[in-house]
Amino acid sequence: MSTDHVLPKKAWEQVVDWVEQRILSGELVVGSHLPAERDLAVQVGVSRPAVREAVRTLQASGVVRSTVGAHGAGGTTIAGLPHQPLTRLLRLHVALANFPSADVTEVRVVLERLSCRLASVDASPEGITGMRELLERMDDDDLPLETFNDLDTDLHVAIARTAGNRLATDMTVAIRESMRMPILSALGVLQDWRAMRLMLRTQHRAIVEAISAHDGDRAADLVEEHIRAAYDRMTSLHVR
Amino acid sequence: MSTDHVLPKKAWEQVVDWVEQRILSGELVVGSHLPAERDLAVQVGVSRPAVREAVRTLQASGVVRSTVGAHGAGGTTIAGLPHQPLTRLLRLHVALANFPSADVTEVRVVLERLSCRLASVDASPEGITGMRELLERMDDDDLPLETFNDLDTDLHVAIARTAGNRLATDMTVAIRESMRMPILSALGVLQDWRAMRLMLRTQHRAIVEAISAHDGDRAADLVEEHIRAAYDRMTSLHVR
Repeated sequence: MSTDHVLPKKAWEQVVDWVEQRILSGELVVGSHLPAERDLAVQVGVSRPAVREAVRTLQASGVVRSTVGAHGAGGTTIAGLPHQPLTRLLRLHVALANFPSADVTEVRVVLERLSCRLASVDASPEGITGMRELLERMDDDDLPLETFNDLDTDLHVAIARTAGNRLATDMTVAIRESMRMPILSALGVLQDWRAMRLMLRTQHRAIVEAISAHDGDRAADLVEEHIRAAYDRMTSLHVR
Repeated sequence: MSTDHVLPKKAWEQVVDWVEQRILSGELVVGSHLPAERDLAVQVGVSRPAVREAVRTLQASGVVRSTVGAHGAGGTTIAGLPHQPLTRLLRLHVALANFPSADVTEVRVVLERLSCRLASVDASPEGITGMRELLERMDDDDLPLETFNDLDTDLHVAIARTAGNRLATDMTVAIRESMRMPILSALGVLQDWRAMRLMLRTQHRAIVEAISAHDGDRAADLVEEHIRAAYDRMTSLHVR
């Protein structure tokens, strides 16, 4: 069983646990109102300031939101839990944990294979157009390396977003975004940026064409080849 | 570029962004001290209460922790970000149906295939022994369903932990943990729990044997078959 905290829980944490338990059990669903502040304080057995602190934390995570209803009535309701807090936390998790880049590469490969496969099924004409626009912008030889890397990140994100699987999207995006800076650093010390850029452009183009042709197997194989080839070139210089 | 918020950011959100930017850039790493409260307030251009609120939020997410140093000195440092906050937030997303269970299943398949493949390479005798102990405990016909499900979760977690890839481990654990309650609910309404239990035991055993035999391809195929078969049986009852 997981043991989230070894130390005794703070008062506000007890309130957060109370809310989370009821979400996990299904007692609270999206739109459910939390009890009024004083009732919640009594139920959990903590002070009202502790309840307020917990509510702020839950708001920050996107779990609840404060509403103002008709006739001045309002309250705190369980929100739809937007995805940004999760993506943000995933991104920080990867950035802070200092996972070996080989490990990150392995996970990127399986997630981006999945995203490409799904994108090949789901991709709309608008989605493909968006990808092609990114390819064109990356064709500019005068682009600073950092801008190219940002567009490269945007392309992988665009492919992931086209996939109809929101969890795969969030994870792929979070990992790729967390790698923006380490990849930029690695690119910055390459001997031959031009050769690398040519390879990346060629591979990106082939991936987008495969997605556009709804060839999921090919798109998955190409993105794996792309991620591994780029990783090999960047680590041949003994960068992290 | 990602746009996390459409609305103007609150003061505390600006502080959180400030910290996150510096984590992603590598300027702040695990163990780094945040500036003192008043300095941070000046740097970001917000009030001290906003800084405090941001710090509480970051503490709640596990990103920072407060430390008390020698001679009364202390501060707020970037923490190691254990996987529990990620697991917790992911679990809420799943519970609030932000991620359709079909989507979670697809991601579980690719991540657990990877974990099994890696475990087949890395598995130590101790790791295999641990897995076999879990299999034996699940052989007990008198186990309550909830206990069986907990052990099932523990087995998938054990396999993931044996894999030498910590990112794959963290993500696999977070996803499987997030499915504990939904799976328990689905199992609870099955017509024939005995038949399901027999299938799960047989499949678990085959997966562990493949890992023990260092047959990564077989282990990966077996775990995919296992996840999909279990999912199909649970959703044939139109459960979420």
